Amino acid sequence: VELVCVGTELLDGKENTHLPAIALRLRAAGLRLARETVLPDEPAALRDGLRAALERSDALLVCGGLGPTFDDLTRDALAEALDRDLVFQPRLYAGIRRKFAHLRVRPPRSNRRQAFLVRGAEALDNRNGSAPGQLLVLRQARRPWPKTVALLPGPTREMVPMLESDVLPRLRRTYGRGLHTGSLVLHLCGLPESVADEKLKPLTARAGPGLDFTILFSALGQVDFHAFVRTASARRTKALLARVRRQALRLVGRHAFGEGPTTLEAAVGGELRRRRWSLAVAESCTAGMLAARLTSVPGSSAYFRGGVLAYHDDAKRRLLGVSPATLAGAGAVSAACAREMAAGARRAAEADLGVAITGIAGPAGGSPRKPVGLVFVAIAGPGDAVCLSRLRFSGGREAVRQRAAAAALRLLWSHLKK
Amino acid sequence: VELVCVGTELLDGKENTHLPAIALRLRAAGLRLARETVLPDEPAALRDGLRAALERSDALLVCGGLGPTFDDLTRDALAEALDRDLVFQPRLYAGIRRKFAHLRVRPPRSNRRQAFLVRGAEALDNRNGSAPGQLLVLRQARRPWPKTVALLPGPTREMVPMLESDVLPRLRRTYGRGLHTGSLVLHLCGLPESVADEKLKPLTARAGPGLDFTILFSALGQVDFHAFVRTASARRTKALLARVRRQALRLVGRHAFGEGPTTLEAAVGGELRRRRWSLAVAESCTAGMLAARLTSVPGSSAYFRGGVLAYHDDAKRRLLGVSPATLAGAGAVSAACAREMAAGARRAAEADLGVAITGIAGPAGGSPRKPVGLVFVAIAGPGDAVCLSRLRFSGGREAVRQRAAAAALRLLWSHLKK
Repeated sequence: VELVCVGTELLDGKENTHLPAIALRLRAAGLRLARETVLPDEPAALRDGLRAALERSDALLVCGGLGPTFDDLTRDALAEALDRDLVFQPRLYAGIRRKFAHLRVRPPRSNRRQAFLVRGAEALDNRNGSAPGQLLVLRQARRPWPKTVALLPGPTREMVPMLESDVLPRLRRTYGRGLHTGSLVLHLCGLPESVADEKLKPLTARAGPGLDFTILFSALGQVDFHAFVRTASARRTKALLARVRRQALRLVGRHAFGEGPTTLEAAVGGELRRRRWSLAVAESCTAGMLAARLTSVPGSSAYFRGGVLAYHDDAKRRLLGVSPATLAGAGAVSAACAREMAAGARRAAEADLGVAITGIAGPAGGSPRKPVGLVFVAIAGPGDAVCLSRLRFSGGREAVRQRAAAAALRLLWSHLKK
Repeated sequence: VELVCVGTELLDGKENTHLPAIALRLRAAGLRLARETVLPDEPAALRDGLRAALERSDALLVCGGLGPTFDDLTRDALAEALDRDLVFQPRLYAGIRRKFAHLRVRPPRSNRRQAFLVRGAEALDNRNGSAPGQLLVLRQARRPWPKTVALLPGPTREMVPMLESDVLPRLRRTYGRGLHTGSLVLHLCGLPESVADEKLKPLTARAGPGLDFTILFSALGQVDFHAFVRTASARRTKALLARVRRQALRLVGRHAFGEGPTTLEAAVGGELRRRRWSLAVAESCTAGMLAARLTSVPGSSAYFRGGVLAYHDDAKRRLLGVSPATLAGAGAVSAACAREMAAGARRAAEADLGVAITGIAGPAGGSPRKPVGLVFVAIAGPGDAVCLSRLRFSGGREAVRQRAAAAALRLLWSHLKK
């Protein structure tokens, strides 16, 4: 499968989010991306780029350039590349007009452009926008299977649903006949890249036709382990996937906080729910980053009470009850202060558990004894229990802060898991 | 200029950050990206892809595949595409070994691979890693200017410095002889996409050779207006850029919060410094997102005092002094509650200014009278001054939260700007 993304804006500095979104979805469907090309909104470049891609690949996904304006050229360029004409579809146009009527907006005349299909193509319904997609199946002279070309709209929220409901099932039927695919994602934390790589070697060394792996590392100390399985029977795929899962859990199970579409903050939330504990935060250098992640989970109000952003030392004293002696002695960035902050958060928000972060994010404020990147995380409660971690991060201010918040989530998770 | 990114991981789901980073830097240097291709770590695909790119373009940037391992194939593929051999460079190898010696690590034997240059290429020093870059200049039969090929390392922190210090100046000298380039970025907030587009039309309609524009919209209601200028003299470039700047400020100046590499939170910080005011937050549905953005600015401790995350109603009452009558009557998501929260934040953290956010992020918790996406932002102080905004956002939970924090920053900025 090849992907062509159309849009001068992508060559002018706009982020391209299509590539990762499509790559992972294709692999989960047992298919793989062989190449991606970004082409500008220019007729000749577009036509030539599409022609070359059509020659090379069995299946071609084209994203973008299906809008109503003069620089939406994908339809015309594909028609030219295939030497076919565009056919106006009155029923398609009526459908587009109905969408506008529904929004009580008169469709601009330029919307007629969206009702033209490349001859032979089938329209794909767009439930989230006005531009219909197109699907074209071309017989190949020397191959038993046909070529498939799908034109998809540019906006992600229109593209992804169309890809998932209309295009991927077709590609699977056409190129995966008799193939049964399956995939899993295991989310790991608390182990460095090189260690994850090494520990998973016995499994990843077995990659081959029908079984492959991707390990994606995030800068925040999280590791996502993807496995993709493809066999000739549903039973064998299921069995192989189960075996891969068992082996992966045996190799790195103590670091696995979740499977499938989940996050570390959701895993922490799950553990809090299980124990019926509530949580409060006290953040200094991260100033809300930890709480923002914890509350990104729908329903987190069931366990998250709130907290205090004690950025200034006065706030640590007044709002969290950190003792002036600690601030004057060990200082605001110390194990003692972190401990008192965590206890203070628990008390202030009447929660079962308090978690605190204090550190030096930089770029200024470091010293030889307390360098930039030094961070303390403490968890207090229930009762007198305290769990403490002293960390040292490299990187700029935002990297240190993000890593500190991620480390606090990891500490919370392993603390709750016990 | 064409860009080729090398790496199977980019086709397997890893985000490609090279494209936007390189696109904007090229334009600031007066050059434009004509196409981008992502190729897998496979010898034939790489060689053919590079060969086609070499035929099409004057300048070719290739990122990635310069490491020491077996799947780092860019050197070999380019040599094959050009029908040249690779030459071992003892001095280059000595330099690589010195880097490892410096780190007190013995270089693995595979590192020898990094000391091979495509015949005729010049090595580019990598100050942030072991893989040297390569620069190759090829005479063209039918053109007065040569072709340029640059091989750059994959990691962004190695690639960007090499691009900026070694490659862009060369490209400018080769393809921009006699051309003087300049660029500006104007950051705007508080105006919708379509309005920004419309208001800037008198300027963007004048785009042409030597003057072009990009308007990048962020989902958070921010608009970045880029202008790129290219003339035959430094004086004319400077004058044209100044004229563009003046005209842009005339068209959208009231929405401009900064120029060049700055952010809305830094602009808010600048205004707070100017007035010598301190700031505290009270966040409910955003739970720290606003504070995290405010404190992403180095030196924000000069004005940011801290705040309260009043996620639970108890916390609003206990930590911010919101009256039980307000919570029982108007409710936690109301103008009255936002006002009391802002005043409470000021009081609790002893700040000049308090800013509060309360809203319904969803997915649950909405009602016909108070739907998901309803958000109140209030600013209190100094004195009895209060500024209030009632907002309604669409999108999922995280979108509502991010937009609410962004709206609070915009309100702060326009409040402070008065």
